[in-house]
Amino acid sequence: MNIKPLGDRVVIKRLEAEETTKSGIVLTGTAKERPQEAEVVAVGPGAIVDGKRIEMEVKVKDKVLFSKYAGTEVKFDGVEYVILKQDDILAIVE
Amino acid sequence: MNIKPLGDRVVIKRLEAEETTKSGIVLTGTAKERPQEAEVVAVGPGAIVDGKRIEMEVKVKDKVLFSKYAGTEVKFDGVEYVILKQDDILAIVE
Amino acid sequence: MNIKPLGDRVVIKRLEAEETTKSGIVLTGTAKERPQEAEVVAVGPGAIVDGKRIEMEVKVKDKVLFSKYAGTEVKFDGVEYVILKQDDILAIVE
Amino acid sequence: MNIKPLGDRVVIKRLEAEETTKSGIVLTGTAKERPQEAEVVAVGPGAIVDGKRIEMEVKVKDKVLFSKYAGTEVKFDGVEYVILKQDDILAIVE
Amino acid sequence: MNIKPLGDRVVIKRLEAEETTKSGIVLTGTAKERPQEAEVVAVGPGAIVDGKRIEMEVKVKDKVLFSKYAGTEVKFDGVEYVILKQDDILAIVE
Amino acid sequence: MNIKPLGDRVVIKRLEAEETTKSGIVLTGTAKERPQEAEVVAVGPGAIVDGKRIEMEVKVKDKVLFSKYAGTEVKFDGVEYVILKQDDILAIVE
Amino acid sequence: MNIKPLGDRVVIKRLEAEETTKSGIVLTGTAKERPQEAEVVAVGPGAIVDGKRIEMEVKVKDKVLFSKYAGTEVKFDGVEYVILKQDDILAIVE
Repeated sequence: MNIKPLGDRVVIKRLEAEETTKSGIVLTGTAKERPQEAEVVAVGPGAIVDGKRIEMEVKVKDKVLFSKYAGTEVKFDGVEYVILKQDDILAIVE
Repeated sequence: MNIKPLGDRVVIKRLEAEETTKSGIVLTGTAKERPQEAEVVAVGPGAIVDGKRIEMEVKVKDKVLFSKYAGTEVKFDGVEYVILKQDDILAIVE
Repeated sequence: MNIKPLGDRVVIKRLEAEETTKSGIVLTGTAKERPQEAEVVAVGPGAIVDGKRIEMEVKVKDKVLFSKYAGTEVKFDGVEYVILKQDDILAIVE
Repeated sequence: MNIKPLGDRVVIKRLEAEETTKSGIVLTGTAKERPQEAEVVAVGPGAIVDGKRIEMEVKVKDKVLFSKYAGTEVKFDGVEYVILKQDDILAIVE
Repeated sequence: MNIKPLGDRVVIKRLEAEETTKSGIVLTGTAKERPQEAEVVAVGPGAIVDGKRIEMEVKVKDKVLFSKYAGTEVKFDGVEYVILKQDDILAIVE
Repeated sequence: MNIKPLGDRVVIKRLEAEETTKSGIVLTGTAKERPQEAEVVAVGPGAIVDGKRIEMEVKVKDKVLFSKYAGTEVKFDGVEYVILKQDDILAIVE
Repeated sequence: MNIKPLGDRVVIKRLEAEETTKSGIVLTGTAKERPQEAEVVAVGPGAIVDGKRIEMEVKVKDKVLFSKYAGTEVKFDGVEYVILKQDDILAIVE
């Protein structure tokens, strides 16, 4: 993976419905919504606040739930990714 | 429960109408609104403000009232949860 | 009363029109608006700003005027309450 | 007067058109707008910013000009008052 | 002049079209817009930021250009004034 | 030029289309938009943040690109100027 | 290249679809959207926060992904550029 997100951004790869089912997580809502579970593939260096860099809370390979509509979709080497701010990640699933 | 919310987020499980009645709390408003009482099932580590982590005020097993429309719904192992920011929790019910 | 508001929230019990008349306060405006005088029944611990907790200015049993539309209504043991932020309280009536 | 405004709020009593004329101030605009000159009848303790209370700039008996639409109207013992934030007061008239 | 503006507010007297022409400044735009050149007649003590009062940049008798729509109009002893925040003053004309 | 902008404001003089062509810069977009290249004719003293004045980054005679719709137009001695905040200047052209 | 962006702005040159394909990145979405990969051609000195200049994270020649709709388009010597804030850059592609 060669996308380095800036600041407090994270690159995630949406997990397929199948994988979603396996882990037991399904996001409810209108029926056609895409699942919002994903795996972290790249993590930015963290935002700078008052001159200090804030350490990121997620790391590569974390499974995460994220806000739908958050972030921007990118396709790279045939795979789709989403780049979003860490604050749009709701939780880490273990 | 294996969802670890990030920052100042909290995972709650909505209490059924029945339980709601038992505890004596009913939220008024338009008749079809879903009850807003819930039990806390996971608590994030707290937000970081000016480089210091702010301790969370709610803890697992707290019964809470929360703003309707707040948060995102997630279904996990067949159970529905809501992930929301602690600031969207109005009060702890004891 | 067993609702503990979080942060700088306050739980108030709207005073009936009758009581309102007794204390001499009536809120003007369109004729059907509900009175906005209330009694404080529970007070949160106060908001945390820059790592310090700000002491609350209202206390239980204070009679207060509050902004209409502010807060969320809750019914508890058959009584209606409003949970709102202290900043939505306009004044203490003595 | 027994209304104690909270924070940086102020309670004012609108001056009658007659009094307004006497002091020589009339607010221009659409013809039906109510005059915006008033007398301060109660002053809050001041807002708390960064843990320090900011001293209020107006005091009881000051004649002030205030932004129309600002604040909330209250009737007390048959007299109408407006409760508003000090920042909605434009100037002191001497 | 006996209007004391609060905080970082300024009281200005719009210059008549005639005077505007004399000084050579005309504001372009739709043809009916009122000129936006004015003379400062009163200056507030300055806003308080982080507990320190910020000194004002304009002073009485300055000729200034100001944002149209900014501020509130007041008539006093038959003369029209505008009360506005210093930040709505664009420039001093010399 | 005798207009002294306040704070972090700048007075610029739009360059004519002809001059624009000469320098080789043309702003794309809908065909009728006015060019956004200009020359700085006056610079404010800089904004005050936390009690310290922030030095300005542009100086008189700089050629700059600026956001269309930014600022207020003023005509002075027959010449049109735009007064805008430095933050609405995109870049210096050399 | 002689455009010096101000503050935390960056000048980028959109990469042609062809180049985009070569690097393997394609942004998904509605079919007609323009590619959002670009090369950095000029970097501002960085924003000033609390009196300290924040070092920029991107440098000239970096390949970057940026938010569509972000920034302003400029044509210079026949080449199109986009001037945008660094925060509108999502990631560096390597």
